[in-house]
Amino acid sequence: MQFELSLEYINHLKNAIAERNDAYLKEQLQELYAVDIALILNRLDLDESIYLYDQIEEGLTADVLLEMEEEKREALLATFSTKEIAEQLDNMESDDAADVINELPEEIQEEVLSQIEDIEQASDIANLMSFEEGTAGSLMAKELVSVYAHETVSACIDEIRRQTDNVDVMYAIYVVDDHDKLIGMLSLKKLIISHPLALVEEIYDADVISVKTSASSEEVAELIQKYDLVVLPVIDQLGRLVGRITIDDVVDVMREEAEKDIQLMSGITDDVDSNDGLWRLSRARIPWLLIGMGGGIIGSRIIGSYEGQIQIHPEMAFFIPLIGATGGNVGVQSSSIIVQGLANNTLITDRIAPKLFKELGVGLINGIICSSLILGYNLLISETWTLAATVSIALFTVVICASFLGTFVPLTMNRFNVNPALATGPFVTTLNDIIGISIYFLVGHLLYSVF
Amino acid sequence: MQFELSLEYINHLKNAIAERNDAYLKEQLQELYAVDIALILNRLDLDESIYLYDQIEEGLTADVLLEMEEEKREALLATFSTKEIAEQLDNMESDDAADVINELPEEIQEEVLSQIEDIEQASDIANLMSFEEGTAGSLMAKELVSVYAHETVSACIDEIRRQTDNVDVMYAIYVVDDHDKLIGMLSLKKLIISHPLALVEEIYDADVISVKTSASSEEVAELIQKYDLVVLPVIDQLGRLVGRITIDDVVDVMREEAEKDIQLMSGITDDVDSNDGLWRLSRARIPWLLIGMGGGIIGSRIIGSYEGQIQIHPEMAFFIPLIGATGGNVGVQSSSIIVQGLANNTLITDRIAPKLFKELGVGLINGIICSSLILGYNLLISETWTLAATVSIALFTVVICASFLGTFVPLTMNRFNVNPALATGPFVTTLNDIIGISIYFLVGHLLYSVF
Repeated sequence: MQFELSLEYINHLKNAIAERNDAYLKEQLQELYAVDIALILNRLDLDESIYLYDQIEEGLTADVLLEMEEEKREALLATFSTKEIAEQLDNMESDDAADVINELPEEIQEEVLSQIEDIEQASDIANLMSFEEGTAGSLMAKELVSVYAHETVSACIDEIRRQTDNVDVMYAIYVVDDHDKLIGMLSLKKLIISHPLALVEEIYDADVISVKTSASSEEVAELIQKYDLVVLPVIDQLGRLVGRITIDDVVDVMREEAEKDIQLMSGITDDVDSNDGLWRLSRARIPWLLIGMGGGIIGSRIIGSYEGQIQIHPEMAFFIPLIGATGGNVGVQSSSIIVQGLANNTLITDRIAPKLFKELGVGLINGIICSSLILGYNLLISETWTLAATVSIALFTVVICASFLGTFVPLTMNRFNVNPALATGPFVTTLNDIIGISIYFLVGHLLYSVF
Repeated sequence: MQFELSLEYINHLKNAIAERNDAYLKEQLQELYAVDIALILNRLDLDESIYLYDQIEEGLTADVLLEMEEEKREALLATFSTKEIAEQLDNMESDDAADVINELPEEIQEEVLSQIEDIEQASDIANLMSFEEGTAGSLMAKELVSVYAHETVSACIDEIRRQTDNVDVMYAIYVVDDHDKLIGMLSLKKLIISHPLALVEEIYDADVISVKTSASSEEVAELIQKYDLVVLPVIDQLGRLVGRITIDDVVDVMREEAEKDIQLMSGITDDVDSNDGLWRLSRARIPWLLIGMGGGIIGSRIIGSYEGQIQIHPEMAFFIPLIGATGGNVGVQSSSIIVQGLANNTLITDRIAPKLFKELGVGLINGIICSSLILGYNLLISETWTLAATVSIALFTVVICASFLGTFVPLTMNRFNVNPALATGPFVTTLNDIIGISIYFLVGHLLYSVF
């Protein structure tokens, strides 16, 4: 039942396409779900995917399109007439159709919309296209089942029969008043087990969580997770029910957020994946490399100002990497815990000070452990007391500073609405590198000039 | 409707508890959802939370317990009698009850189980406790609605009335044959709009995706995401329907996986968050700090072997941080893209070689850019040609090496079933630091001895 996409299988299909072996292709396609067919199309050349797409049974084509990678889908749709695109959009849920039409070149969007046969679907799509990306309005779908509070259960079931034509999976039945304002929910279970002549207003649940169309997608994800919802109704400024967001759409948002955070943490600027082209991958990485190099150059100037000292005590240079690496590691550890606490809302941000004190406590403990160990090591390999003391004092100070910065920087970024994940990456590391070197040579300079 | 937990509000509640102001507390609690009450309990002292818990209306107590932090819940439950715990478990879904009972001290688990009044619930819990953690069996709940294929729609609705006593939200109706084998699904929509005398076998959908109890939670999460499912039926080795997993449980698994990955990337070993104690936070971080220091010590030995050269050319030391930082950044960038591709299955792992070549291509481009810029800088500030050449050649080589390692290490870890996120953290950074320094001094040694 589960499907593994192997290189071998792809090659079989490529051969079958080259030989125009329609019987084999149709047989294969019948076994597969839309998402699996989409994975195959993602791996084919455009000519091949046009050919294979034509072999897909009609009921699946819209779903296959939706599951394809954006770039591949755009390329495939570019070979369609506006009429053909409109036909596919007619078979999608309104939110998916709006996403697809938004990807099309602007000059054909209107033409495609006007060619959609189902007038209601066309107006739903046009409505959804008007919401700003990243808002609840842009995430929602218009397909839902709603009933009036004054109806009976049996009238309700008739109504549901009419409405469910457009609805694939029915998650919930929404209850609205005479002004279409959302006032509650009716569970299917309640509906099925209630007397046919009971009134909706007697059996519905007035306790319903909803969002406004203007809410951000992060708020939507937070609500759905916090209250373990499967579907969340969306209301307009007047409280009227206008759509619903399902958890699977939110899972995609969550995954994208998490990936964006990891990319920021790793110093990658654009939304790239390993299948992107060489130039795109290079371009996404060079900015942070250059910032890191800028930090390295500043470091070289600092060390350069101690040139004379290095000439007399070249052993000072030995521990530059150790100081830099430990400072960097501590900084990343500290900020990662803060970023994670901010992301999953376990962190109480009322006051920054207690967090800083706690983090300094952790820094104190780990700083003492690390600097004692390196002191033992240096005395063991019979380095001079001066060098041993310099390394340990500097290491201890660097650990404390890095703990402080690793906590302070992401909390401050968060307060100014900058994504704090940025702080866990090259930024804090570079800063810690520079501060670490400054401290190390300053301590060394002082100790060597005294002893 | 949405609830913000402020320090001020918590203090109001603490005062009301101190004053035994039950009227105020009950009024407050009535406004809140279970998860919000749990957030409050997480912030109170044990005495206070025992008092507040007693004020919660009975229908909510089990849900509140479930939403609390594990440690806080354990502390609260430790003040309960086994009889009281059993009463709470009786009001939970079987999967949640099994999770809670697994957290109890082993010596009282059996006693608690034996005190659960509903025999079926007790046996469901005992059954769920037998599955290994991290498997589909341990994630599933036993509450579900199933009907036989030979029944009529109206018999089915009667059956559903009986079965839904235990089921909070009904996601789907499963269809089984006479041997309880899962053969398909019946949508509620279909059930509601079908004729009462129609047979289930005439209207059900035989196309159903399921997992075995032994499947891993990662497999479950993958299936649910890939096929956009809300609920996934679980079958035993004989194909009999034994439970179901809902998407909200999987969302929790996904979030935990993502957090674990980020912690590994940041060099934190245990599952900690920013509210944990000082010692626990310190202990979770020290291992990677020590490994990083080990790398730093190796680096110091390598530099130490060039002591004479540094004495003559102290300017060699200036660029140690730049070489180390750039190598580290490139390595993290490369492995992060690979780890992400592995995590979301967009990466085709048939063959490693093409990935390596591509990454080397990116390294080549970025290596040329970085080393040209630093060459320009060094000539501009009139460093010697020898040093300028050393830095640029070493930097270029380091970028290429780091690209290679950043790709090779996580792919290899993945092949040997080690979590590749480990590779994005201090491990690759430390390795790149050591390699970078070796290359830098080797190149420097060669160039200075020639020119």
